[in-house]
Amino acid sequence: MAVKVGNQTWQLMRPPVILETATVAGPLEGEGPLHADYDSIYADPVAGESSFEAAEREMMLNACFTALQKAGLAPSNIDVFLAGDLLNQTITSGFSAQELKIPYLGIYGACSSSAESLIIAAALVEAGFARLVLAAVSSHNSSAERQYRYPTEYGVHRKPTAQWTVTGAGAALVAAPDVAGRLDAAGRPGTGGRPDAAGRARTEASGASGAASTGTPGGSGTLPQITHVTIGKVNDFGIKDPLNMGAAMAPGAVDTLINHFADTGRGPDYYDLIATGDLGSFGHELVVRLAAERGGFTLSDNYQDCGVLIYDFDKQDVHAGGSGCACSALVTFGHLYHRMQRGELKRVLLCATGSLHSPTSVQQGNNIPVIAHAVSLEMTSQR
Amino acid sequence: MAVKVGNQTWQLMRPPVILETATVAGPLEGEGPLHADYDSIYADPVAGESSFEAAEREMMLNACFTALQKAGLAPSNIDVFLAGDLLNQTITSGFSAQELKIPYLGIYGACSSSAESLIIAAALVEAGFARLVLAAVSSHNSSAERQYRYPTEYGVHRKPTAQWTVTGAGAALVAAPDVAGRLDAAGRPGTGGRPDAAGRARTEASGASGAASTGTPGGSGTLPQITHVTIGKVNDFGIKDPLNMGAAMAPGAVDTLINHFADTGRGPDYYDLIATGDLGSFGHELVVRLAAERGGFTLSDNYQDCGVLIYDFDKQDVHAGGSGCACSALVTFGHLYHRMQRGELKRVLLCATGSLHSPTSVQQGNNIPVIAHAVSLEMTSQR
Repeated sequence: MAVKVGNQTWQLMRPPVILETATVAGPLEGEGPLHADYDSIYADPVAGESSFEAAEREMMLNACFTALQKAGLAPSNIDVFLAGDLLNQTITSGFSAQELKIPYLGIYGACSSSAESLIIAAALVEAGFARLVLAAVSSHNSSAERQYRYPTEYGVHRKPTAQWTVTGAGAALVAAPDVAGRLDAAGRPGTGGRPDAAGRARTEASGASGAASTGTPGGSGTLPQITHVTIGKVNDFGIKDPLNMGAAMAPGAVDTLINHFADTGRGPDYYDLIATGDLGSFGHELVVRLAAERGGFTLSDNYQDCGVLIYDFDKQDVHAGGSGCACSALVTFGHLYHRMQRGELKRVLLCATGSLHSPTSVQQGNNIPVIAHAVSLEMTSQR
Repeated sequence: MAVKVGNQTWQLMRPPVILETATVAGPLEGEGPLHADYDSIYADPVAGESSFEAAEREMMLNACFTALQKAGLAPSNIDVFLAGDLLNQTITSGFSAQELKIPYLGIYGACSSSAESLIIAAALVEAGFARLVLAAVSSHNSSAERQYRYPTEYGVHRKPTAQWTVTGAGAALVAAPDVAGRLDAAGRPGTGGRPDAAGRARTEASGASGAASTGTPGGSGTLPQITHVTIGKVNDFGIKDPLNMGAAMAPGAVDTLINHFADTGRGPDYYDLIATGDLGSFGHELVVRLAAERGGFTLSDNYQDCGVLIYDFDKQDVHAGGSGCACSALVTFGHLYHRMQRGELKRVLLCATGSLHSPTSVQQGNNIPVIAHAVSLEMTSQR
């Protein structure tokens, strides 16, 4: 059973583990500093499909099937598929669920969906609902731009505070601790390959899969546990500009961090790394300032933002940095997961932020409602 | 702990209860046969707000605050708020969460969201995450029409198979069994009133609240338990026409019913009532035929559809019947909940169907992906 600590945080008494992850990235992301951490990099943003929306779906499915394959599992081994994305009616997730044929629960948390999916997955595992949950999120720059703002073909000028929606998808397999141990001891049970992989192998470049290896096949190594989760409240900080999402979401991240630290009795120093989801450079700066002003704590070098980490600001024209569901997923399920497995990070706090506006809500004059969820990932020996 | 039975069904070993519900309805629904079961009926579809989207939000908040008030609870008593709706980026749910200030997890299951919210709520309660979860869904005819099809002002001709998106919202309080018992024994702890109720009391007519009384205040009576849940898979049955949702969704309902009965060893006769979510008259007929063809079982008078029950087909021009998240919610959280509490129904199976398409996915030539989730509600003495 999970135990509620404080107002918004739950401690998982039988912490689920992240058994395996996979990430796939678009071309711009594949040229970024974390390229070696992605399982696949697409050279073509349309991924050989007929639309950006279909490309995004191909990416989510690729991430899901790759995670399954790396774990030696088939879709039939998975109890529940949890997924979310930015598109209207979350069509990426729904159509992916159709191909995976796993009992499906759709979520919507905008860019906080990576953390929301881990939180619900952890709850389902603790409730005995699931031994294995597949959680996935995606975003695509071109499908998001034309839905939220302007078609990319229009070539609109972008403000310096604008962020670049990340193209890609991430998937994580969340497992009960005994299941993870049993799989490793017995060898993985299935082959997990994508049924029609030959016809769909549109991945045109591949990340340095050696560097991205998780170290789990064969049973060695340990796995990150989900030890605590903090479920965010929705706040309105008076921001109306959807081209300045960092400013909108930064106070949301700080609100959840304040509550996480108050609930757990931990301070920022407890973590080797605190990673906000997709605030970008302006948002990152604002979080540091608001943490001091509103929370009375200092965030130093162990605080980073996925939207800053994912691009090379000197070489890549991404304005304030990355955003989108895939931003925190690529960085956390790829880069940070690998760093944890290499022993470089023992305790990571993911604080994924989401902006819950729609173009309609903005046009109708509403402020941007913001949420942030936090998930503690900690390395503890499983066996 | 929940126990998985079969492939898609979970039995809740410590069944959560539905402590309280509330439903609010639009004007057309308020003229329908179930009007006495609604807590509030709006005479004005804009509910005194400046847009249909704001009206839908007003309705979800009204349902939430009414459920809390009936249970004698305040938002601060609730551990998690789960909500979903049909609008892009589920803005009704996100903005409602902002006003409620309860830790929030957004879901998207289209019209299956009522059942999805009960399933995740039940899992959170079993996992020890929550003692009390508030689950809410909404839909609004005019906000849905202009998003999915045409603005209502356009006056488009509708096909006979077209359904009428229900205007309204439903909320359910899902509680751990010991919490429900304790609340009733001790009297309800809070007042639960809407903070600014005076300014927002735009409800212009009220359902027969006497008839709608649940019988729980004061501690008497029993409460419906969530005993089993069947999580649906997404299926594609080759339907492309979003103006014939009943045909698209009926096979999905049958697929979930077949799995529910196979997993539990139950037959249709086990239930006093099986209610599909929002298939309407054509879909209802199709379910009966497909159940015999594909499942080999007969659905008789104990099978009904919420989209048929909610309107008077002789007097109301609703074509094939009701649809939308609020359709199954108004019928289940209102009418059926009251019938269970009056002892008229002991065992109810809600099978809420959802179509996971978007206008974009339809325009791009995709078939309509369909899901259905089933929830067993059973009356068993709590104390």
